[in-house]
Amino acid sequence: MRFISQTLTDGVTERLFTVGDAPGVVWAPAQAADPRPLVLLGHGGSQHRTAPRVVARARRLVTENGYAVAAIDVPGWGGRPVPAEYEPFNAELGELIAAGKPLGDAFARRGVVAAALAVPEWQATIDALTALDWIGPGGGVGYWGVSLGSAIGVPLVAAEPRIGAAVLGLIGHETLEEAARRITVPVRFLLQWDDEIFPREWGLALFGAIGSADKTLHANPGGHTATPTFEVDSSVRFFRRHLRKVTSHSW
Amino acid sequence: MRFISQTLTDGVTERLFTVGDAPGVVWAPAQAADPRPLVLLGHGGSQHRTAPRVVARARRLVTENGYAVAAIDVPGWGGRPVPAEYEPFNAELGELIAAGKPLGDAFARRGVVAAALAVPEWQATIDALTALDWIGPGGGVGYWGVSLGSAIGVPLVAAEPRIGAAVLGLIGHETLEEAARRITVPVRFLLQWDDEIFPREWGLALFGAIGSADKTLHANPGGHTATPTFEVDSSVRFFRRHLRKVTSHSW
Repeated sequence: MRFISQTLTDGVTERLFTVGDAPGVVWAPAQAADPRPLVLLGHGGSQHRTAPRVVARARRLVTENGYAVAAIDVPGWGGRPVPAEYEPFNAELGELIAAGKPLGDAFARRGVVAAALAVPEWQATIDALTALDWIGPGGGVGYWGVSLGSAIGVPLVAAEPRIGAAVLGLIGHETLEEAARRITVPVRFLLQWDDEIFPREWGLALFGAIGSADKTLHANPGGHTATPTFEVDSSVRFFRRHLRKVTSHSW
Repeated sequence: MRFISQTLTDGVTERLFTVGDAPGVVWAPAQAADPRPLVLLGHGGSQHRTAPRVVARARRLVTENGYAVAAIDVPGWGGRPVPAEYEPFNAELGELIAAGKPLGDAFARRGVVAAALAVPEWQATIDALTALDWIGPGGGVGYWGVSLGSAIGVPLVAAEPRIGAAVLGLIGHETLEEAARRITVPVRFLLQWDDEIFPREWGLALFGAIGSADKTLHANPGGHTATPTFEVDSSVRFFRRHLRKVTSHSW
């Protein structure tokens, strides 16, 4: 892990770093010195590690919960080179878009390839970040990522015993169900009732497949990108319930 | 409306009353003097207006939100005489139970009859309670009732323009869908993924039928009575978001 730069805005530090080829960012309270939980934010397919929506969620988890929060760019996103393995899927997606056809199946199949590349990068990121004094290995790790963030998040949470709670959703596909069955930690699963990319039934099936006894589906009307903002509030509370509480004097 | 008794426990008044034939109860902060929102609690099929679960929810809405909260017994419940109209359904339910067959369809059809009796009683209760100085007509009315509480709540919320937000769920049936389509206020809809009384697909269809633009489904694993307690916390917050805020000095 190599730190590149550090800035401080309104009490939140933002440190850019790389782990191997992956460019990352970690946010924390300015005074962070003691160990604390780490939440990983997996960006969506039209986003990247410092997209406004990702940063806004990170700031809330830092300022309201006292956590450290990290994001990395998935290979092919955020300016990273597009892996050759994506090329057939990208060609297929171009044709589907031109023909006005549904994209979910091709997105999900490309997501399998993205996950194979990104899961080891996330695991190396957890290794590096939990070795820092102000995060540490004991505070618990959460994962929050929907759509592409769940194409990667479902296999990541299934594979990674350090992750103790996850917000997932806005996706459903048969390629994710085997991994979903191996997830046992508390899960919040978001679904958009009128999702034009991943049909409702696919999302319901993926929620059903998740192995956790403690899992909750939150479904709202509207399309793929129309999740109401109150679900962000609710996800912040979800992590507060499942990761360790940070006492405010240690922020 | 006739008040029968009043008790005070830990800062919450509990007043028993009758409106016509309906026995009711209204809870409020001990110092309540100014107008405030009113939340109606519709009990479930194995409950009544002062069942522990109903009282616990009422106390939370009073002590955390400052609301007035009312419950009435549905005809045939809480010691009220069983209406003759229920008899064929009760006979059918007895046979289904003896045969180990699913009960949801018969419950829902009996619920249509119960709603026809109970909706006018709820409306008379709203009339009477919003005429009191310490509730008043302007604070907004919420409804919170699942299972039997939604067999009655769905047609009540559809018919009653004074109700501005509702927590519904744990039911689904074709007999409720026409009324559901007429509901336009914010709705929280609870569903149990493994509901043994109302199949998942029935609940999903009823959520889908609700006409509101602002509606959220919360689905959790487990059977009909296994809704996690964190959904109670979440429902209390739902009303806080949608009904008027009570400033603490007026409690």
